Amino acid sequence: MKGIIETTADDIREMKVRGAGRIARAGADALVKYAEEYRGNDLNNFLKDISAAESTILGSRPTAVSLWNGVRITLRDVRSASSFEAARESVIRNGKEFSESSFRAVDEIARMGAKRICDGDVLLTHCNSSTAVGVIAEAVRQGKDVKVYATESRPWRQGLLTVRDLSEAGVDVTLIIDSAVRSVMKKVDRVFVGADTVTSSGDLINKVGTSQVALCAHEARTEFNVCAETYKFSPRTLAGETVAIEERDPGEVVSPSDIPSDVKVFNPVFDVTPARYIDNIITEIGIMSPGSVYGVLSSRMGASTDI
Amino acid sequence: MKGIIETTADDIREMKVRGAGRIARAGADALVKYAEEYRGNDLNNFLKDISAAESTILGSRPTAVSLWNGVRITLRDVRSASSFEAARESVIRNGKEFSESSFRAVDEIARMGAKRICDGDVLLTHCNSSTAVGVIAEAVRQGKDVKVYATESRPWRQGLLTVRDLSEAGVDVTLIIDSAVRSVMKKVDRVFVGADTVTSSGDLINKVGTSQVALCAHEARTEFNVCAETYKFSPRTLAGETVAIEERDPGEVVSPSDIPSDVKVFNPVFDVTPARYIDNIITEIGIMSPGSVYGVLSSRMGASTDI
Amino acid sequence: MKGIIETTADDIREMKVRGAGRIARAGADALVKYAEEYRGNDLNNFLKDISAAESTILGSRPTAVSLWNGVRITLRDVRSASSFEAARESVIRNGKEFSESSFRAVDEIARMGAKRICDGDVLLTHCNSSTAVGVIAEAVRQGKDVKVYATESRPWRQGLLTVRDLSEAGVDVTLIIDSAVRSVMKKVDRVFVGADTVTSSGDLINKVGTSQVALCAHEARTEFNVCAETYKFSPRTLAGETVAIEERDPGEVVSPSDIPSDVKVFNPVFDVTPARYIDNIITEIGIMSPGSVYGVLSSRMGASTDI
Amino acid sequence: MKGIIETTADDIREMKVRGAGRIARAGADALVKYAEEYRGNDLNNFLKDISAAESTILGSRPTAVSLWNGVRITLRDVRSASSFEAARESVIRNGKEFSESSFRAVDEIARMGAKRICDGDVLLTHCNSSTAVGVIAEAVRQGKDVKVYATESRPWRQGLLTVRDLSEAGVDVTLIIDSAVRSVMKKVDRVFVGADTVTSSGDLINKVGTSQVALCAHEARTEFNVCAETYKFSPRTLAGETVAIEERDPGEVVSPSDIPSDVKVFNPVFDVTPARYIDNIITEIGIMSPGSVYGVLSSRMGASTDI
Amino acid sequence: MKGIIETTADDIREMKVRGAGRIARAGADALVKYAEEYRGNDLNNFLKDISAAESTILGSRPTAVSLWNGVRITLRDVRSASSFEAARESVIRNGKEFSESSFRAVDEIARMGAKRICDGDVLLTHCNSSTAVGVIAEAVRQGKDVKVYATESRPWRQGLLTVRDLSEAGVDVTLIIDSAVRSVMKKVDRVFVGADTVTSSGDLINKVGTSQVALCAHEARTEFNVCAETYKFSPRTLAGETVAIEERDPGEVVSPSDIPSDVKVFNPVFDVTPARYIDNIITEIGIMSPGSVYGVLSSRMGASTDI
Amino acid sequence: MKGIIETTADDIREMKVRGAGRIARAGADALVKYAEEYRGNDLNNFLKDISAAESTILGSRPTAVSLWNGVRITLRDVRSASSFEAARESVIRNGKEFSESSFRAVDEIARMGAKRICDGDVLLTHCNSSTAVGVIAEAVRQGKDVKVYATESRPWRQGLLTVRDLSEAGVDVTLIIDSAVRSVMKKVDRVFVGADTVTSSGDLINKVGTSQVALCAHEARTEFNVCAETYKFSPRTLAGETVAIEERDPGEVVSPSDIPSDVKVFNPVFDVTPARYIDNIITEIGIMSPGSVYGVLSSRMGASTDI
Repeated sequence: MKGIIETTADDIREMKVRGAGRIARAGADALVKYAEEYRGNDLNNFLKDISAAESTILGSRPTAVSLWNGVRITLRDVRSASSFEAARESVIRNGKEFSESSFRAVDEIARMGAKRICDGDVLLTHCNSSTAVGVIAEAVRQGKDVKVYATESRPWRQGLLTVRDLSEAGVDVTLIIDSAVRSVMKKVDRVFVGADTVTSSGDLINKVGTSQVALCAHEARTEFNVCAETYKFSPRTLAGETVAIEERDPGEVVSPSDIPSDVKVFNPVFDVTPARYIDNIITEIGIMSPGSVYGVLSSRMGASTDI
Repeated sequence: MKGIIETTADDIREMKVRGAGRIARAGADALVKYAEEYRGNDLNNFLKDISAAESTILGSRPTAVSLWNGVRITLRDVRSASSFEAARESVIRNGKEFSESSFRAVDEIARMGAKRICDGDVLLTHCNSSTAVGVIAEAVRQGKDVKVYATESRPWRQGLLTVRDLSEAGVDVTLIIDSAVRSVMKKVDRVFVGADTVTSSGDLINKVGTSQVALCAHEARTEFNVCAETYKFSPRTLAGETVAIEERDPGEVVSPSDIPSDVKVFNPVFDVTPARYIDNIITEIGIMSPGSVYGVLSSRMGASTDI
Repeated sequence: MKGIIETTADDIREMKVRGAGRIARAGADALVKYAEEYRGNDLNNFLKDISAAESTILGSRPTAVSLWNGVRITLRDVRSASSFEAARESVIRNGKEFSESSFRAVDEIARMGAKRICDGDVLLTHCNSSTAVGVIAEAVRQGKDVKVYATESRPWRQGLLTVRDLSEAGVDVTLIIDSAVRSVMKKVDRVFVGADTVTSSGDLINKVGTSQVALCAHEARTEFNVCAETYKFSPRTLAGETVAIEERDPGEVVSPSDIPSDVKVFNPVFDVTPARYIDNIITEIGIMSPGSVYGVLSSRMGASTDI
Repeated sequence: MKGIIETTADDIREMKVRGAGRIARAGADALVKYAEEYRGNDLNNFLKDISAAESTILGSRPTAVSLWNGVRITLRDVRSASSFEAARESVIRNGKEFSESSFRAVDEIARMGAKRICDGDVLLTHCNSSTAVGVIAEAVRQGKDVKVYATESRPWRQGLLTVRDLSEAGVDVTLIIDSAVRSVMKKVDRVFVGADTVTSSGDLINKVGTSQVALCAHEARTEFNVCAETYKFSPRTLAGETVAIEERDPGEVVSPSDIPSDVKVFNPVFDVTPARYIDNIITEIGIMSPGSVYGVLSSRMGASTDI
Repeated sequence: MKGIIETTADDIREMKVRGAGRIARAGADALVKYAEEYRGNDLNNFLKDISAAESTILGSRPTAVSLWNGVRITLRDVRSASSFEAARESVIRNGKEFSESSFRAVDEIARMGAKRICDGDVLLTHCNSSTAVGVIAEAVRQGKDVKVYATESRPWRQGLLTVRDLSEAGVDVTLIIDSAVRSVMKKVDRVFVGADTVTSSGDLINKVGTSQVALCAHEARTEFNVCAETYKFSPRTLAGETVAIEERDPGEVVSPSDIPSDVKVFNPVFDVTPARYIDNIITEIGIMSPGSVYGVLSSRMGASTDI
Repeated sequence: MKGIIETTADDIREMKVRGAGRIARAGADALVKYAEEYRGNDLNNFLKDISAAESTILGSRPTAVSLWNGVRITLRDVRSASSFEAARESVIRNGKEFSESSFRAVDEIARMGAKRICDGDVLLTHCNSSTAVGVIAEAVRQGKDVKVYATESRPWRQGLLTVRDLSEAGVDVTLIIDSAVRSVMKKVDRVFVGADTVTSSGDLINKVGTSQVALCAHEARTEFNVCAETYKFSPRTLAGETVAIEERDPGEVVSPSDIPSDVKVFNPVFDVTPARYIDNIITEIGIMSPGSVYGVLSSRMGASTDI
């Protein structure tokens, strides 16, 4: 029978567990449970076993920033522990703490981000970020009167999800095509977007089109806010890894039968928004500028150049 | 039986004649034919009749810049003529000249614009402008090796027409969604777009999204070229008229059944690209900067503040 | 007894005639009257006399751009006339034409500028320009709902005149100090200012602070409009003359008794707004970009490098 | 008889104690004295009492960033103390340390900031910041030859205080109106301003007009320096609080009798200078960029998202 | 024996006549002399012969903008002449006028440009332009106190010529390497450079490095002036021709023996300064902005799209 | 006989030890050896002696940032040690750690920086930085196909060293003059430069011309990377010290005999690149933005305002 580690790794690999936050918590929870149920009391054996568990978990989705962070934080004290008990306890304590904190992160961000919104504001969001939607919905729940533009977000049109989410939250929302962002930006007070990954230099990797929104915001003196749980901060970029921009199937953009066969299609999933266009990164540990990401990664999250 | 003036006005009104160039030539040609077939030889009567004809033609599409220009240029000397014959001849001469010149304009622009393209260039175009496509196709016909990005251009997806046009002209073309413009812009050497209208201050009114493309080009030191026959230059903006940005049906963007009923849709057809992002306006009378449009309108096209 | 030329020169010199437009018309009118009443019929004598009259008029206020323009335009054909009668008539015709056109200019600009204002716009103006105020008042008279910010405009506080003018015209107006321009600019759609002088390169010389307003507008993608009769276009800058920025008495800024005696005060009257921050120059002959000023000066106003 | 806590709270509330630094030290000193004189030796009671004292002090001026920082730093270790004595001592030690450090901060900033000034520099300052004045005066005391522009700073004209302060320090100073900042900025090497508040993202809240000065400095490649004791860093902004920009009485700007009754007046006290226009923040713990504020707040000042 | 046309063409081809101005005048003068000495009186024969002469002259240096302009202006009326005498006279009159005007152009530009320089200004120039040097020398001759930075201008180090020219004119001049331009730019008030070619859109083609100087000037709010006789305005760019940037021998940059054999050298002669970085173009017919070049080319210099 | 401290100080003073890294390690190694061989066991004496050693070492090159850092880090725990043994051990441990880490730093940076380079990239470097060259060479060793532009870097032409280094590493490299940077920048994907010093605000002091390269990169959306070991971070700038830009002999730029004797030469060695043009600082402890430098200096390197 498979143990908790293998089961969790399978669930992540087979996409039974999805979403950056859920994946990270699944990894941390599995290690906690593994430590709780660990039989034996030898420090060296425990360290060897926990390292094997770590590899198994990380191997289930090697490029997921959040999983890497969850596991890393859970195990950050284990190797300097002076006894088996101390080691076991550090895994349990750190893992639970990460899990709870990551669980509350979306709510914390909503609470803090909502304070930044003023009554009467016009907002804009791109794609479908539950964190960004949460911020806006919270502001409306507090009684603030806001008007929101949501982009269609081709090719998958996640904007249709966003307008649904915001409509359900009672928000006055208007759908626009991606090409109309600059047309409305002069009237927009603040932009809120989510994050796939934040690099150690403070750049944002997010749904393709985000960087155009940021550029239009910059041109119009519109505040540009990134809503990002700190487990979106990438320790690997601190060590030089670039974030590869995945290209997906042309069929998502256009049916092959609708274009001549020699026409190519370039369908990138993400783009890179440079730090200089970002005013605030709203995280569960506070609002910061892009220049602070390295410090958080290295001092709070134990990231180093050994990856 | 209807005369040539009424018939032409009807054809324009009922969209039997479409396209900025065709409409303008139809108006000029009708006035030429009217003058050629005019029976009578009294200058005052002719002026009265030709004014009535002018009103009928212009009334068939009051907001079409090209029609206004075609009629205005055709009639520019008639009111200062010293005899009936001189008046009639001026209409015929000016009308034919405009018609021929506007007919050749797309080819002239292609010829001149193509010279600006270097072997190995990467280009980008937005929406489906026959003038911009003409420039690129001409460069390829001259044996230049270029690579072109064409945007999808939601909501009508005219980019599918553009990739077809370019593919037929033997051009290496890649389709991208509108949100991916900034992703590729760093690698693009030159942008070519068409024009709906150029204002007297050199701003461009064109398909929504054009101004975002221009902004991205500006950010990346990419040359931004507007391909515009001079009959796209708007004399009415010289006199202060703004170009109203038409809003179209939400159903073009999304089926009403796909979004909650309280969600609004904003669907503008055009946007405004400020003169400061435009490097060159390529016209059939030469390549100029936006700062030269007023001079062309007032000195060559006889525009004034009386509209 | 003094003739019309001397009387007019005295009136201008002694500030009995004030304001750019009135001075220019006074100069042109005096030359017209002088020509009408001229006794004699010899071309050479007339040219000699009219040159003397020109010098007398221009000498009454050598730095007034508008006077220079009024006189120059009045006399532009006189020296190439082939007979005394033709010469005299050219002075009368050109002088009257200038006078009438300059008289109508403010109204023409108001009519054209008002079209640029949209219902619901937020506007801003600096100092007290009757031309800019005229544009805004005309828009309100047409039933457009606008809100206007007017700056105090230290040291003379002409903003108090502006809020009075706008209040009388029924405009919703809010007074701000000069330091608060950037605080409100994000919400402003359009700025309208007047002009003291426009250079041949399209730069604007106007009340000190104007260039800061323009810079703030540029930063926030706010349209910046200059309302300027063409007699504000300076032919002398075409020939290289710089516009000296007059410095005025420190006492206008602060009473000497309020500051230590070794503290200096710098009190410039004007500043220079570079062409690149100006979107539109609204003149009585149409709306243009700064790049068109040289063409207007040289082709329409006969300016040359001989000054 | 009132104790030290109540007396101090009253003094702050009634403005007997004024100025960001003095308020903060008064709060810290009161807590130190309270701890020193505390009778009892039970940890739990002490914690309860000290919490009550904290509330009383903070309640005397809830929006003062410096008071919040002084109290927070004084009490940062008390709740994790393991004994009454340790708790009492931590209050005394931390409070004294804060008080002394804040007392020396202005001098430290003067010492460090003065090093940045070169012989022959032209400087500019806005409003009346004792910290910025201190930096300039120190440079002059060191024998550096500098020339300073000081703005009038309407509506209260604190610039008159600044020119007096600088004149007394032997500085060559010139007063200008707020609208003349851009007129002189091309010649200015460095700007020094004070701070009301610095946010966790590195934005500056300061006297209205500061952001215009920063924008003009940015346009002219002029170095922009903020002189800010770290107790001006706002922990509350880390948790999302926005800094409300106080509006004050219109009568400060203009006498109601000088304008029509329907004219409004907008009189904001502060404005927001975005981090991207700030080159250096000079604090008593060193010179940093805006990107470092979050790190200082969270690691050195113990700020968290629980406020 | 060769006629004047062949002799002149040979002289130009063989570099006996050098320099943009001299070449242009040689071409115009040759046509004038040819017309003066023409034997025959038939208009058609004259037109045929003058066309042949035109081809011969232009063929001697096909890429020289100034030659093209001199010939074009000389012949601009000949083809619309109604008689042989009128044709011959138009060639003589236009040719002489061009020749004299081009001869005076450098002095005119010096006279106008010098007015733009203020006492106490710090200036910068790049490479060795006699026109730019003339402007500066004239200002100094008028008694203005200026300080000039001159760049070395690798690879040919024409800066050594410039410092010699300026030193002889009594100018306070400092030599810097090309990499030090940004180091001094903050202190520079105005830049003056010459021109190889000005395009119809107002871009400047000039010695490599000019565009970096312009960029540095733009960043520091330093005025950037181009000194260009109008025969540097390129009619061919109006018709779409690009200005090929000549590449020269690597040996000018480095001796082949000083670098490994597989190292390449890129040695472009010119670069392109975009119109948006140019404040003023100082020509013999006045000071204008880049936006005015098209108008001058088409209305004054008879340029058209037929080349 | 001289001890290790004096010998090392002499070697540094007499330039027997050169290069930022070697100097720093020599200082740290000397202190380690001194501690290892220290005879005695009294803490106070040891502290007194080690302070004297510190002064001697630092005095050998007072302006070398790296030496200051090496010594400071070696001694960072010694003064808080509770016993002689602890003190001695802290010196040995910290000094060895610094020495090893600084030794590996160039390799670490090469490893991390190389990951940022993509196959097919066009790169540019200025002057001759072994760290920047190391990054590029490592990318090529990994099989990436890159093309590199290297600037000549007048006056010493270190670019000739760079092209040799890169050629030896098998890199496709092209030499350009410093004025040609903007000519090629549009095609460049990434710039890599070294560092002389990085200030606490994130500004870069490096070979003159670096800031022009950065400005050109910024204009063209080209990524600008600084390769800097953390011992290039200057603790003294944290305390307000400015980095004096050394001026060197005019003879390096031009032979005095080649210019008139009254011509001056300005020959600065370094220039300052503002933080806003820097995308990434690549250090041996990770990739960060300029906003993170203060945090590293104060938390990791123990820098304070007492210098």
